[in-house]
Amino acid sequence: MTYQLYYWSGIPGRGEFVRLALEEAGAPYLDIAQTKGGDEKLVTLMKASRVQHPSFAPPFLKAGSLLIGQTANILLYLGERHGLAPKADAGRLWVHQLQLTIADLVAEVHDAHHPIAGSLYYEDQAAEAAGRTKHLRDERLPKYLGYFDGVLQRGGSGWLAGKRLTYADLSLFQTMEGLRYAFPKAMRRLETRYRQLAPLTNRVAGRPRISAYLASDRRQPFNTQGIFRHYPELDA
Amino acid sequence: MTYQLYYWSGIPGRGEFVRLALEEAGAPYLDIAQTKGGDEKLVTLMKASRVQHPSFAPPFLKAGSLLIGQTANILLYLGERHGLAPKADAGRLWVHQLQLTIADLVAEVHDAHHPIAGSLYYEDQAAEAAGRTKHLRDERLPKYLGYFDGVLQRGGSGWLAGKRLTYADLSLFQTMEGLRYAFPKAMRRLETRYRQLAPLTNRVAGRPRISAYLASDRRQPFNTQGIFRHYPELDA
Repeated sequence: MTYQLYYWSGIPGRGEFVRLALEEAGAPYLDIAQTKGGDEKLVTLMKASRVQHPSFAPPFLKAGSLLIGQTANILLYLGERHGLAPKADAGRLWVHQLQLTIADLVAEVHDAHHPIAGSLYYEDQAAEAAGRTKHLRDERLPKYLGYFDGVLQRGGSGWLAGKRLTYADLSLFQTMEGLRYAFPKAMRRLETRYRQLAPLTNRVAGRPRISAYLASDRRQPFNTQGIFRHYPELDA
Repeated sequence: MTYQLYYWSGIPGRGEFVRLALEEAGAPYLDIAQTKGGDEKLVTLMKASRVQHPSFAPPFLKAGSLLIGQTANILLYLGERHGLAPKADAGRLWVHQLQLTIADLVAEVHDAHHPIAGSLYYEDQAAEAAGRTKHLRDERLPKYLGYFDGVLQRGGSGWLAGKRLTYADLSLFQTMEGLRYAFPKAMRRLETRYRQLAPLTNRVAGRPRISAYLASDRRQPFNTQGIFRHYPELDA
């Protein structure tokens, strides 16, 4: 079975969390965003009345007869099918809990540059964005990164959950890379405080399949259209 | 086994989504928020170094030797154990997808009154809250409620997923009640447009165990400390 991943073209966005899992699993997939008319295909499928399980927003994954939406839910599915999460309840739920906490962080990062409305340009809410991003840098990022740092310390294996890589590790890698792009100054400071995060990020980047993926043209750079955006005035 | 639910006292908040599932399941549970020193017990357990799977934030549920955090993750677990979700992949993942979409909506409702920082008072961000809430009322609520209305229409059973109640129905009930409390004017308008939502809400409220719960003193009223807050100036 070849998976079909639906996500907006032109940004890594939330689709990237799914791509990383598919790449690490070595699972064959078609990235619809990289095909001609990808965004139109996405919108068509999202609105088609014949679709039994429509998604509120991308990404969504076509897996045979299944159509699965919500990033963390797609990862729950891929984790079970491809050994990217433990099978037993305790580990399976713990990995999902970590993923949902990463999702909360990612949503907060998005809203830092769009605190008033996703439908307005950043430039139309730049003053409010400055206020919200200051709180993100000073309060929320230390709280989140301190939490994941503590989880890594507690576990002691170098991975977030158990002794093997899980989809939560892949997602934390992507989040760290996004934060470094968006807030290079703040992250230099935070990474000297939370020292478990860089080694985890390096371990993920060093996985053979992830390493090959990152060097390929399938990997998209961050940009100022996505979730993680670098606006120099928002970094400090 | 008696579950132990940990959540902040004094507000229904995200803990309420878990309470509704426990009540519908008829599962015995101790609501730590209703015990003496509940908030202290919560903080102690959240920070205890002996805890293998610490939560970033409440609610979390103690289930025997498991400690499970993140609302949607707790519901995933309870859904599997108590028949509040289908067992097969297609239905199980669909219910979870719906729950995660409800969680996104709930986070947006929270941020409407706290667009700059959760650590600041509403009064210190009231101007920005007015801007964000206008977009919530005019764009986001119609989009979310229209989505769930469409899901109910498509399914045709009166429940969101399949032919039986699932935890997503309970959560949509709670969300509708919260929105009605917070935005009575906007919701009167929206409910005439999305006509599948009130019947679903009524069906949930009419379940024998939920009905008994809502009439009990275990059910907490909404207030202006929680996620769903009524500030008349934010409604229209």
